[in-house]
Amino acid sequence: MTKLITSPQNTLIKQLVQLKDKSRERRKANQFLIEGKRELSLAIKGGYKIKTLLFFPDLFSESEAKAMSQYGIDIVEISKEVFQKLAHRDTTEGVIAVVNSKTHLLEDLKLANKNPLILVAEAPEKPGNVGALLRTADASNVDAVIIANPKSDLYNPNIIRSSVGCVFTTEIAMASTAEAIDFLKHYNFNIFSAILQESEPYHKQNYTLQTAIVVGAEATGLTQEWREAATQNISIPMQGNIDSMNVSVAAGILIFEAKRQRDFK
Amino acid sequence: MTKLITSPQNTLIKQLVQLKDKSRERRKANQFLIEGKRELSLAIKGGYKIKTLLFFPDLFSESEAKAMSQYGIDIVEISKEVFQKLAHRDTTEGVIAVVNSKTHLLEDLKLANKNPLILVAEAPEKPGNVGALLRTADASNVDAVIIANPKSDLYNPNIIRSSVGCVFTTEIAMASTAEAIDFLKHYNFNIFSAILQESEPYHKQNYTLQTAIVVGAEATGLTQEWREAATQNISIPMQGNIDSMNVSVAAGILIFEAKRQRDFK
Repeated sequence: MTKLITSPQNTLIKQLVQLKDKSRERRKANQFLIEGKRELSLAIKGGYKIKTLLFFPDLFSESEAKAMSQYGIDIVEISKEVFQKLAHRDTTEGVIAVVNSKTHLLEDLKLANKNPLILVAEAPEKPGNVGALLRTADASNVDAVIIANPKSDLYNPNIIRSSVGCVFTTEIAMASTAEAIDFLKHYNFNIFSAILQESEPYHKQNYTLQTAIVVGAEATGLTQEWREAATQNISIPMQGNIDSMNVSVAAGILIFEAKRQRDFK
Repeated sequence: MTKLITSPQNTLIKQLVQLKDKSRERRKANQFLIEGKRELSLAIKGGYKIKTLLFFPDLFSESEAKAMSQYGIDIVEISKEVFQKLAHRDTTEGVIAVVNSKTHLLEDLKLANKNPLILVAEAPEKPGNVGALLRTADASNVDAVIIANPKSDLYNPNIIRSSVGCVFTTEIAMASTAEAIDFLKHYNFNIFSAILQESEPYHKQNYTLQTAIVVGAEATGLTQEWREAATQNISIPMQGNIDSMNVSVAAGILIFEAKRQRDFK
C-alpha cells in the first residue's frame, strides 16, 4: 500500500532533509537523495539500489510510481509542501528517491579496455566543477574517473545536478592522492600531470597506451606528489593575458586529445 | 583635488548602481563599471578609457589612486558603505572604475594573422558561459570572438567576473547571426558549425586556413542559418549516456584542435 505523507514535520521527511543538506548524514546513513526523472533513470542504469520513491502526484504519474513497487521499492505519496521541502531544484519533476550509496573503492574499478584512459581530478573545489568533469568523462567515455583527496562526498546535490546524472553511470573511485598514485603505478599507467611549470606541451605526447590524465584544483594546481609521480608533466600552451584555465575546459582539451589519438575507439 | 563621497544616497553613486545593475543604463550612458585590480589593468591594456576611479582607502592605496589623476582620470575616495553598495563581488580589492564602452562592430575587428582563427558563439545563455568562452579565447589567443545574436551586453558584471578580465583584451564583435555570416563569407572564412546531427567528426577537418568555429547555446544549439552557412558541420563524438556537453568545454576542445593543427603558431 502506498504511504501518504503531508506534513513537512514528519520524522522521515526531516531525516531526508538532513540527507539532502549534510554530507555527514549521507555518510552515516550510506544513503542519499536523487531528484528528477533523468537522474533517476541514470542511477538505475548505473546499478544503484533505490530504497524509497517519493512522488508528488500533480507532477509525477501515480501509476508510474506504483509500478516501481514491484522492484521492492517503498512508494510514498507526498504533498506539495513536503515536496518543496525536499526538492533541491526549481525545475524538478515531482519525484525524489532515497538511494543506497556506493563505496567507490579503487580496487572495485572495472577497467574493461586493454589500454584504459583514466581522468584523475585532485581536490576539485566546487561541486559544479566535479559535475562538469563528469559530463566530460561521460561524453568521452573514459574508462574511469578518480577523485583524489576529494573535498566533498560524491552525492552532494550540486554534483548530481551539474553532472546531469553522469555521476551515476561513470566508473568513479575516491581515494587519497597517495593511494591513487600507488594504484596507477601498480597497473603500469602512464601518468600525465597537468601543470604549468617545467612541463612539455600536451599535444606532443602519446596517450594511446594505458593513460591517466591528472588535473588539479584551479586555485592551487596539483600537489608535488603528482608532479613527482608523473611519467610526464604536461601543459596546455597559454598564449594570452591570463595564465589559468577553467579546470573542466582544460580536462576536456586533454581528454579529447587522447581520444583523438585513439581515433575515438 | 580628490573628491570624497561617504553617502550611498549621493546622486553619482545612485547612477553608478544603475550602471552596475542595468544593461539599459550601460547602453544609454555608454559606460560601465569595473572592479578589481587585475580587471582594471587588463582594461587599460585593452585600450579602454577610464573616466572615474573610486577607491576605498582601507583596501586600495591612496597614492596609487592619486597617481592615476595624471591620466585625466577623476579620482574619488569613497566610504566603506558606498564601496559595499557598488561592489559586485565579495573579494574585490577596494577599487571601482567608470569606463567608456567600446562599440564592438564587425568592421572594427583587427585580424593581424594571414589565416585568422575566430570563435563564434551564438546566443550564449548565461553570462558565466560567455566568460568561460572568453577565458578559452584568451588562452588560445584566437584572433577574435564574435558573439552572434547576443542575449546580454558585454559589460554585464558576471561576464566581466567570469572572464577574469579577458573580456577587455580579446578582440570581440557583437552582431546578428546574419551579419556575422555575411562578414565571414565576405572574407572567405571556412565556417565550421558545431551541431550534433548530420555532421562530420571535428577531428577529421582542416583548420589551418581562415577558420571560424561556431558553437550554439547549450539548450537549443545553433540556428538553421549557421547549419546552412557552414563550409562543414562538425561534431564532437559523444560516446556516453547524455548527448550534451558544456558549451565552454566543447568550444575549448574545438579551438585547441585547431591550435594543435597550427602547432600553436
